[in-house]
Amino acid sequence: MTGLAGASGLTTVRTPAAVQTPGRGRPELRLQTGEKLVMIGDSITDVGRARPIGEGRADDALGRGYVMMVDALLGAVYPDRMIRVLNMGTSGNTTRDLKARWQTDVLDLKPAWLSIMIGANDVWRQFDSPKQTERHVLLDEYERNLVELVSATQPTVKGLVLMAPYYIEANRQDAMRAMMDRYGAVVKKVAGATPGAGFVDTQAAFDRLLTTYYPATINWDRVHPNPTGSALIARSFLTAIGFDWQRGLESA
Amino acid sequence: MTGLAGASGLTTVRTPAAVQTPGRGRPELRLQTGEKLVMIGDSITDVGRARPIGEGRADDALGRGYVMMVDALLGAVYPDRMIRVLNMGTSGNTTRDLKARWQTDVLDLKPAWLSIMIGANDVWRQFDSPKQTERHVLLDEYERNLVELVSATQPTVKGLVLMAPYYIEANRQDAMRAMMDRYGAVVKKVAGATPGAGFVDTQAAFDRLLTTYYPATINWDRVHPNPTGSALIARSFLTAIGFDWQRGLESA
Amino acid sequence: MTGLAGASGLTTVRTPAAVQTPGRGRPELRLQTGEKLVMIGDSITDVGRARPIGEGRADDALGRGYVMMVDALLGAVYPDRMIRVLNMGTSGNTTRDLKARWQTDVLDLKPAWLSIMIGANDVWRQFDSPKQTERHVLLDEYERNLVELVSATQPTVKGLVLMAPYYIEANRQDAMRAMMDRYGAVVKKVAGATPGAGFVDTQAAFDRLLTTYYPATINWDRVHPNPTGSALIARSFLTAIGFDWQRGLESA
Amino acid sequence: MTGLAGASGLTTVRTPAAVQTPGRGRPELRLQTGEKLVMIGDSITDVGRARPIGEGRADDALGRGYVMMVDALLGAVYPDRMIRVLNMGTSGNTTRDLKARWQTDVLDLKPAWLSIMIGANDVWRQFDSPKQTERHVLLDEYERNLVELVSATQPTVKGLVLMAPYYIEANRQDAMRAMMDRYGAVVKKVAGATPGAGFVDTQAAFDRLLTTYYPATINWDRVHPNPTGSALIARSFLTAIGFDWQRGLESA
Amino acid sequence: MTGLAGASGLTTVRTPAAVQTPGRGRPELRLQTGEKLVMIGDSITDVGRARPIGEGRADDALGRGYVMMVDALLGAVYPDRMIRVLNMGTSGNTTRDLKARWQTDVLDLKPAWLSIMIGANDVWRQFDSPKQTERHVLLDEYERNLVELVSATQPTVKGLVLMAPYYIEANRQDAMRAMMDRYGAVVKKVAGATPGAGFVDTQAAFDRLLTTYYPATINWDRVHPNPTGSALIARSFLTAIGFDWQRGLESA
Amino acid sequence: MTGLAGASGLTTVRTPAAVQTPGRGRPELRLQTGEKLVMIGDSITDVGRARPIGEGRADDALGRGYVMMVDALLGAVYPDRMIRVLNMGTSGNTTRDLKARWQTDVLDLKPAWLSIMIGANDVWRQFDSPKQTERHVLLDEYERNLVELVSATQPTVKGLVLMAPYYIEANRQDAMRAMMDRYGAVVKKVAGATPGAGFVDTQAAFDRLLTTYYPATINWDRVHPNPTGSALIARSFLTAIGFDWQRGLESA
Amino acid sequence: MTGLAGASGLTTVRTPAAVQTPGRGRPELRLQTGEKLVMIGDSITDVGRARPIGEGRADDALGRGYVMMVDALLGAVYPDRMIRVLNMGTSGNTTRDLKARWQTDVLDLKPAWLSIMIGANDVWRQFDSPKQTERHVLLDEYERNLVELVSATQPTVKGLVLMAPYYIEANRQDAMRAMMDRYGAVVKKVAGATPGAGFVDTQAAFDRLLTTYYPATINWDRVHPNPTGSALIARSFLTAIGFDWQRGLESA
Amino acid sequence: MTGLAGASGLTTVRTPAAVQTPGRGRPELRLQTGEKLVMIGDSITDVGRARPIGEGRADDALGRGYVMMVDALLGAVYPDRMIRVLNMGTSGNTTRDLKARWQTDVLDLKPAWLSIMIGANDVWRQFDSPKQTERHVLLDEYERNLVELVSATQPTVKGLVLMAPYYIEANRQDAMRAMMDRYGAVVKKVAGATPGAGFVDTQAAFDRLLTTYYPATINWDRVHPNPTGSALIARSFLTAIGFDWQRGLESA
Repeated sequence: MTGLAGASGLTTVRTPAAVQTPGRGRPELRLQTGEKLVMIGDSITDVGRARPIGEGRADDALGRGYVMMVDALLGAVYPDRMIRVLNMGTSGNTTRDLKARWQTDVLDLKPAWLSIMIGANDVWRQFDSPKQTERHVLLDEYERNLVELVSATQPTVKGLVLMAPYYIEANRQDAMRAMMDRYGAVVKKVAGATPGAGFVDTQAAFDRLLTTYYPATINWDRVHPNPTGSALIARSFLTAIGFDWQRGLESA
Repeated sequence: MTGLAGASGLTTVRTPAAVQTPGRGRPELRLQTGEKLVMIGDSITDVGRARPIGEGRADDALGRGYVMMVDALLGAVYPDRMIRVLNMGTSGNTTRDLKARWQTDVLDLKPAWLSIMIGANDVWRQFDSPKQTERHVLLDEYERNLVELVSATQPTVKGLVLMAPYYIEANRQDAMRAMMDRYGAVVKKVAGATPGAGFVDTQAAFDRLLTTYYPATINWDRVHPNPTGSALIARSFLTAIGFDWQRGLESA
Repeated sequence: MTGLAGASGLTTVRTPAAVQTPGRGRPELRLQTGEKLVMIGDSITDVGRARPIGEGRADDALGRGYVMMVDALLGAVYPDRMIRVLNMGTSGNTTRDLKARWQTDVLDLKPAWLSIMIGANDVWRQFDSPKQTERHVLLDEYERNLVELVSATQPTVKGLVLMAPYYIEANRQDAMRAMMDRYGAVVKKVAGATPGAGFVDTQAAFDRLLTTYYPATINWDRVHPNPTGSALIARSFLTAIGFDWQRGLESA
Repeated sequence: MTGLAGASGLTTVRTPAAVQTPGRGRPELRLQTGEKLVMIGDSITDVGRARPIGEGRADDALGRGYVMMVDALLGAVYPDRMIRVLNMGTSGNTTRDLKARWQTDVLDLKPAWLSIMIGANDVWRQFDSPKQTERHVLLDEYERNLVELVSATQPTVKGLVLMAPYYIEANRQDAMRAMMDRYGAVVKKVAGATPGAGFVDTQAAFDRLLTTYYPATINWDRVHPNPTGSALIARSFLTAIGFDWQRGLESA
Repeated sequence: MTGLAGASGLTTVRTPAAVQTPGRGRPELRLQTGEKLVMIGDSITDVGRARPIGEGRADDALGRGYVMMVDALLGAVYPDRMIRVLNMGTSGNTTRDLKARWQTDVLDLKPAWLSIMIGANDVWRQFDSPKQTERHVLLDEYERNLVELVSATQPTVKGLVLMAPYYIEANRQDAMRAMMDRYGAVVKKVAGATPGAGFVDTQAAFDRLLTTYYPATINWDRVHPNPTGSALIARSFLTAIGFDWQRGLESA
Repeated sequence: MTGLAGASGLTTVRTPAAVQTPGRGRPELRLQTGEKLVMIGDSITDVGRARPIGEGRADDALGRGYVMMVDALLGAVYPDRMIRVLNMGTSGNTTRDLKARWQTDVLDLKPAWLSIMIGANDVWRQFDSPKQTERHVLLDEYERNLVELVSATQPTVKGLVLMAPYYIEANRQDAMRAMMDRYGAVVKKVAGATPGAGFVDTQAAFDRLLTTYYPATINWDRVHPNPTGSALIARSFLTAIGFDWQRGLESA
Repeated sequence: MTGLAGASGLTTVRTPAAVQTPGRGRPELRLQTGEKLVMIGDSITDVGRARPIGEGRADDALGRGYVMMVDALLGAVYPDRMIRVLNMGTSGNTTRDLKARWQTDVLDLKPAWLSIMIGANDVWRQFDSPKQTERHVLLDEYERNLVELVSATQPTVKGLVLMAPYYIEANRQDAMRAMMDRYGAVVKKVAGATPGAGFVDTQAAFDRLLTTYYPATINWDRVHPNPTGSALIARSFLTAIGFDWQRGLESA
Repeated sequence: MTGLAGASGLTTVRTPAAVQTPGRGRPELRLQTGEKLVMIGDSITDVGRARPIGEGRADDALGRGYVMMVDALLGAVYPDRMIRVLNMGTSGNTTRDLKARWQTDVLDLKPAWLSIMIGANDVWRQFDSPKQTERHVLLDEYERNLVELVSATQPTVKGLVLMAPYYIEANRQDAMRAMMDRYGAVVKKVAGATPGAGFVDTQAAFDRLLTTYYPATINWDRVHPNPTGSALIARSFLTAIGFDWQRGLESA
C-alpha cells in the first residue's frame, strides 16, 4: 500500500495521485461537496463533543480538540465543499467499546468518510491499572477488534483513514511507548491491508514536536493533547486527505 | 502601502521581502525564536481567556478563538521558534477601553509583536443601544483613539499588525455593514501610515465565506465567530506574518 | 381574505374596519367570559413557560414573552371576562414538532380559541445549519403540516388565529427574509382558506419598527423579540381579536 | 387640581391640554423625542432590574414589572420617540432609603421625567414587624420625606409623576388598607402642590380589579403585583402621560 | 358535640373540664407509652418533612412546623411515654390528594392516633386560581372526601383528632375567611359525628392572636404560619390530647 | 442565692415558690410589654440565626433552636406583651469570644433582659482538641470572663438569666461531664452573686431526660440539642422567667 | 481458637505459623501475588468509596478510611505482591443489609480474601432511634445473620477476617458500650468457629487509644473514626494478616 | 553527612544503624511529648489542607496526603506523645514562594520540628512552561533559596527534616528526572551541612516502587502521589524520625 502523498513519511494514504497532481504540485482534497465525515475514537477525539451526536451549532458541538480544528479549517478554506463533520469520540473507549457502539455510532450515520483513532486506552489500562486485568485489551485482541471494525465498514464508505494511537514520550525504550509503537504498527498493517484506507502516523508527528518540547509541555499525562497537539493531529489528518494549505492564498 | 505577501490581497503588510523570498517562493515567518506576541481586542479576541494575563497551561488560557488557533498552529508548525503568545482581549471593549488599560495590558508586557483587532463594539453600540449615545464611539474618536494607541506603541515593538473590524453581512448597503466598512478603512489608513505595521483585511476574508454561507451559519449575531470564523481570522493573520503552511510537509 | 366580520371570524391588523365598527367606533372582544385560549408556537412563544402546561400562579408560568403580555393585558383590561390563557410554545419547534405533540398539547386541552405562530425554525435551519438538510422543513412540507394542524383543529374551536412567522430584517432581498416572506404568505393563505381563522401579520408590525430601529436593537439574532418586540406581537394579536384599548379609560 | 385627561378619574396630571387636544379626541404623549424617564420606587418597581443602573440590552435590565412594560409599550407604539427608560427601584425601600440614594440614583442621572411610587414599605413594616418600631416610617415623616424629594427634583425636570402606593385589599376598614389610603392621600396632596406634577391613583386601578378578583389572585401578599397587576400599573401610568393606545392602529 | 369525656374520647379546646379532672386539676395525656401518632395535612403540616416518611434523626425529619413542635414538647415533657410522631403532610394537598395516598400514607403505617388538618388548599384555589375550576374542591365534595377518609380510619385507630383549616384574617366578612369558616364547620360536624374523634378549633386560636397582631405579622399570605403560628397550633393540639403543661415543674 | 422574689429578681427552676405565688397558684411573666430580650451564647443558641442581628421576618431569623421556641411560645401565649426577642448566639464561641463582641452584640442593643448560655466550647476544646492548648479556656479564666461580662451588663438591664452549660452524658464520672459540672457550678455561683440575675440549671433538665433516653437519641455528639432538647431548654428558661403555661387555656 | 500471633491480644487469626516464622521473628504476609481482597462493612468501611464497585484510579475510589490505608500500605510496602483491594462498605448498613446485597457485592466478585466489619448500626439504632424498633437488629438476629453470611462465603475464599464492631467509649458500664461488647463477642465466637477465619479486636485497639484521648478527640459521635482511628483499624487488620512493618527498611 | 547519631540528630533512610540501635534492635521516636511538627511544601504536601493553618478537627484539615498519614500513624501508634502536626503545604509553590511566606507560615508557628519538601515546581515549570522563563527557578537560585530558609530556621527548632523532591520516572536519562536528581542532590548537600538536619531520600523510595509499577500507576503526571505514594513518603519520613513500627504490637 502506498500513501496519499507518496514521499511523505507523515501521511501514507493509498491513492496519492488523487491528492497531489504531479503536474501542478498542489494537492486535491479527496472529500467532495456535501460528503459526510465521521471521526471516531476516544477522549483524544471526544474532548467534550455534543451527545448523542457530535454535531450542531454550539461552538463545542464537535468538542475542543482536533475534530473541531479539522471542521474549522475545512470550513474556512473549503466553504464551497460544505463538508459535514461529525465527532463520535467517547472518552475512555477501547476497541472493545467501539465494537459495542459501531452500529449506532458509525454505520447508522452512513458516512462517506470515516477516521478512526483508537488504542490509547487499550494500552494505558495495562500501565495505570495493572491489577484490573479484565480491562486490558492485549495486542491480539486489539488487532482482531480493529480488523472487525474496518472490515464491516470498508464496503460502505468512500474512504477510511486509520490514525495511529500515540504516546507523547520520546524514549522508545519506555515500556508504554514501546507497547504503543506495537499497537501503532498494527494500525499501519491493517490500513495497508484495507483497500481505500489511509494511515496517519500521529506518533511520528509528535516525535518531531518532542525534539523541541518535553512531553509535559503538551500534557502532564503524555496522552491528551493541548491545542498545539490537537492542531498537530488535525494538520496531519488534513494533509493526508489532500488538504491544500495554500488554497485561496495565491489569488488573495 | 504594500503587503507582507506581495501579490496577496488578503494580507498587506509593509515588508513583503521579509516574508517571501522571491527566489524560493516560500514565505518566511517574521517572528524570531523566543519572541513574544501580544494579541489585543474585544470579545472576538477574548473568548474566555485567562485573567489577568491570557497565558498559561490551561487549555483555554488563550481563550477558544483565533488566538488559541494562532498559538496552536505556531506551536505545531514552528515548535523550534518557541513563540510566546498572550491573549489580552476583553469582551465588550471599544478603543476607549483599550486606552484605559494600554499601559498595563500592552506596554508593561513588553511584546516584540502586537496585533490589534478593535472596533466591533465602537460600531455595534450605535445599532443595538441607539439611545445610550454616551456609549457610542463615533468615527472621529475611533481614529483618534487608534492613532494614539498605535503611536504610543510603534516605537517599542518589532512589528504591529492591525486587523480590521468586520461584520458578517454580505449586503454592503446594510447600515451597520456600511459603517463597519468605514471603520475598517480607518484601520487600513492608520496601518498604512505606521512604519512596520501590517494590515489584515478580515472583512474581505469573511466576504469570501459569505459567498457560500448565510451569516447565521457563522453566528446568529453576525459578529462573534464560530470555530470556522476563528480559523479564518487565524489563517489570515498567520499568512500576514509570513507563516509557511507547507513547512515540514515537503520533507515529511 | 376578509376580516372579523367575514367568514373567518377574526381579522388581520390591516383591516381596521373589522375591529372598529364605524358606527360605534369601538371594537368588541371576541373571547367570551371564561373561555380558554391556547397559544402555541416555538421559542418566540415559549420564553420559559411552565411544563408540562404553561399555566399557573408563578409569575413566569406563561413565560416572559408575548403570551404573558396578552394574558396580563386581558387581565388588567377585561378582568370580568376571566379569559384563561395557556402558553404551549416549545423552543426550537418546527411544524413537524407541532404535529408530534398536537393531540396532547392542543386537542386534549379543549381550547375555545387557539393561536399558532410557527415557522421561524422551519426557515432558520436552512440558513444556520445548511448541511443538516434532514432538519430543513421546506415550503411544501411547511404548508402541508400547517394545513393538517389547522384542519384537525378548526372544527373543535370557536376561533383560530394564525400569526405569520417573521424575520427582523428590513432588507427584503436578504435571503432569509425573502424565504420568511414566502412562509408568511403560506400562513396568510391557509388562514384565508379556513373558516373562522384570522391572520396576524407580525412581519408588517416589525417592519414598521424597523423604520426607526436597526434589527440589533430588538435582538442580535433578528428572531427572538426583546420585551418591546413581545409587546408588539401582543398588541397585534390583541387588536386582531377585538381588544378595546380604551376600555375603562373613557369613564375613568 | 385637574388631571392629564380631563374627565379621567384614573389619571390626574396637571396639564391636560398637552395630552389631549379637545378638537381631536386623541391624547398626545408628553415625552418628546430622546427624553429620559427615570422610574424610582421599591420592589414593585425593582422586580430584578440591572445594577447599578436599571438599563441595558438584557431582557430583564428593566426588571420584570411595570417599568419593563412601560418601556416595551413605548418602544412598540412610539419607536420614533426613542424614549429612554431607566428603572431605579430598589426592593424594600421606604422614603428614608430614597433620600439616602437620591443624589446618585436620580439627580445625577439628569432625567427629563421622573416617576415615584413609594410608601408600601413605609406602611407594611408597621404591620408585619410591629415590634421593630425603628423601621416604621410614620405618616408625618413620610410626608416630610416625600416633600423633600419632590422639592429637590421638581426644578430639574420637565415632568414629575407621583404614583400612589396601594394595597390589594378591597375592605377599606382593613387596618393596613386604611393606613395605605392615608399615605396615598399624602401623595395626592404633594402632587397637587407641585407644579408640573401628575398623580396616578394606582389604588383606584386595583380597586376596580378587586370587583372581579379576590386579592390572592394577584398575589398572596396583597402587595407585589403579578404580570396582570404590573400591566395595570403600566397602563395607568402611560395613560397619565398621554399615551395614545390607538396610535398606528387606525392606519394599520 | 361533646369533649374527651364523651364517646369520642378527645375534645375541643373549649371544653377544659374534659382535659382537667376537677378533683385533681390536672389533665391526663391520652397517648400511652410507645403509641404512634401520624399527623397528616398540607403545607401547614409538611414544612419540609422527610420523604417518603416524615420521621428520623435529622432535625427537620418532622419538618419545621407544628408537628416538630408537638414531637419536641412530647419528648421534653413526656420522655417516658416514648410517643412516636410521624409527619405525613404534603404541601399543596387537598382532600382529593389525601384520598389518593391514604392507604400508603396513613393506613399502612398503622397509627394508634391520627390527626388531620386539611382544607386550606380546597378553599384557596377558588380564590388564587379562580379560572382553573378543575382544581377547586367545593364544600360538598370536601365533606364527602373528609367523611370517606374518617370512616375508613376510625375503626383502625384509638383516637382521631380533626383540626379545622383556618385563615389568618380577622374580618369574617372577607370572602375567603367566610368560606374557610364554612369548611371549618364541616370539620367540626364530622368530628362530632365520629366516635373517638376530637376537634381542634385552630381558627379560634388564630382569632385570639389577631386581636393583637395584623395578619401580616404571622405571614404575608395569611395561611402559612411562622413559628409563633406553629406554636399556637401545637399548643392547641397538645391541650386537646390532655397534655399537662405543668408536668414535672411542680417538683422542679 | 434566692429566687425571683429575692434581690436577684429571677430564679432557678428549682425554686417554684418564686414563680408560683402560693396564694394564686399561677406564675407572673416578668417581662413587660414591649421589652427586648437578647439571648446570647454559642452554637446551641445560634442554630442558623440571621446576621448580623438575629431578628426579622424570615422563619429562621431567630435560628432553629431554643431561642426560636422561646420567641414562638411568647408570641403564641403572650401576644399582647409584644416581647421582642433577639438571638445573638454564635457557633463555636467561648467566653473569650463573647468578650470580643460584647459591646456591639449586647450593650449596643440596649436589651431590657439578657440571657447567657456559654461554656460548652470552653470545655469541649480541652477534650476534642487536646493538643491545641491555646484554644482551651480553663476554669479560672472562664470565671473571670463570665464575671467581667456580667458586671459590665448588670447595671444596664432589668434582668439577667444565666443558663448553665451542659453535657448530655448521664455518667458523672465521665471526664468531660465532670468538668462541665464544675463550669456549671461557676455559672450558678456568678448568678447567685449578681443582683437581679437568675440561674437555669439546664444540666438538671437534661439529666431528667437521660433517665429515659440514651444521649445519642438527643444527638450523637452529646452537645447540640435536637428539637426535643431545644424544647427542654426553652421550657426551663420560660418557666424561670415566670411563663404561665396555662395562660388562656382555662378560659378556652 | 488461637490467634495469628499467639500471645497477641490485638489479633487472633487462626494460623499464626503462617504469619510469623518463629525462627526469624518476622511475619509473613498471607496474601499472595495478585490475590483479591474485598473489605465489606458500613460507613466505617465506606467513607465515600466509588460506586458500584469501590475500586479504580480516583484517589478516593477506595474511600478515605481504613480501606484506603490498607491498600496504600500494601502498595507501598508490598508493591511486588500486587494485591487488589476492593471497598464494598455501605454507610448505614446492618447485617440485614449485607444479606440483601451479599451475592452481588461479595460472591460475584470472587475474592480470595474477605474482611467483614459490621454491627455498629445493628446496635446504634437501638440507642439513637429507640422508638423505631423495626430498625433494631437484636443480638440473636445479629448472630444468625453473621453466621449465614460467613457460612455462605467460607468455602469460596482462601481467608476470612472478622473485625469486631467497636464503640469509642472507655466506660464499659455505658449502655451502648456494654451492648457493643456483646456484639463483638459474637463476632469473636463466629470467627472461632469458622475454619480459616481470623478475628481482629478493634475495640481493644481503641481502648488503648482511650487511655490517652477522650472519645471526642477521635469523633464527637464515638463511632466514625478520624484518620487516626482509621490508621488504627488498618494497622490492626494488616498485622492480623501478617504484614511485616519492617519490610524493606532493614536493607534501606 | 552523619545520621541521627551525629550532631544533626536525624538521618537518612539509608543509615539504619542510626534508627535502630543494635543492642536494642528498636528505634526511638525523636519527637517528644507535646512537640509541634510543621510540614511545609507544595501540592504534594498540601492536598487540600485547611486554610490558613492546616490543622483542626475536620478529617481533611491536614489534607489527604502524606501529612495526614504521618499524623494518623503518630496518633495511632504514639497517642501518649500527643505530637501536634501542622500541614503548611501550598500547591504550586517553589522555593521562591516559600521565602515569601516563611515568617508567617513557619517561624510564627514556633515549631519544634520542621520538614521541608520543595522543588517539584522549581523544576517542572522548566519543562511544562518552557517559554515562561520568569517562572523558572534554576539550580543556583534553588540552592540559595533553600539555604536561606534553612539557615533562618535551624537555630529556632529542635530538628529539621529535608525531603528530596522526586520525579516518578525510572529512566534517569529522562531530562526532567535528571534535573530533579540534581535538585535532590542539593537538598542532600544542604541537609548534610546543617546541624540537626536529616535527609529523606523520597526519590529512592519511589525508585523501588518503580521496579514493580509503571509511573502511570501512581499518577499520570508522575508527580502527585496517589494514596500509595503518600503512604510511601509518610513511611520514609516516619522511619527517618525514629518511628518504631512494631511499637505496641509485641505486647499485643
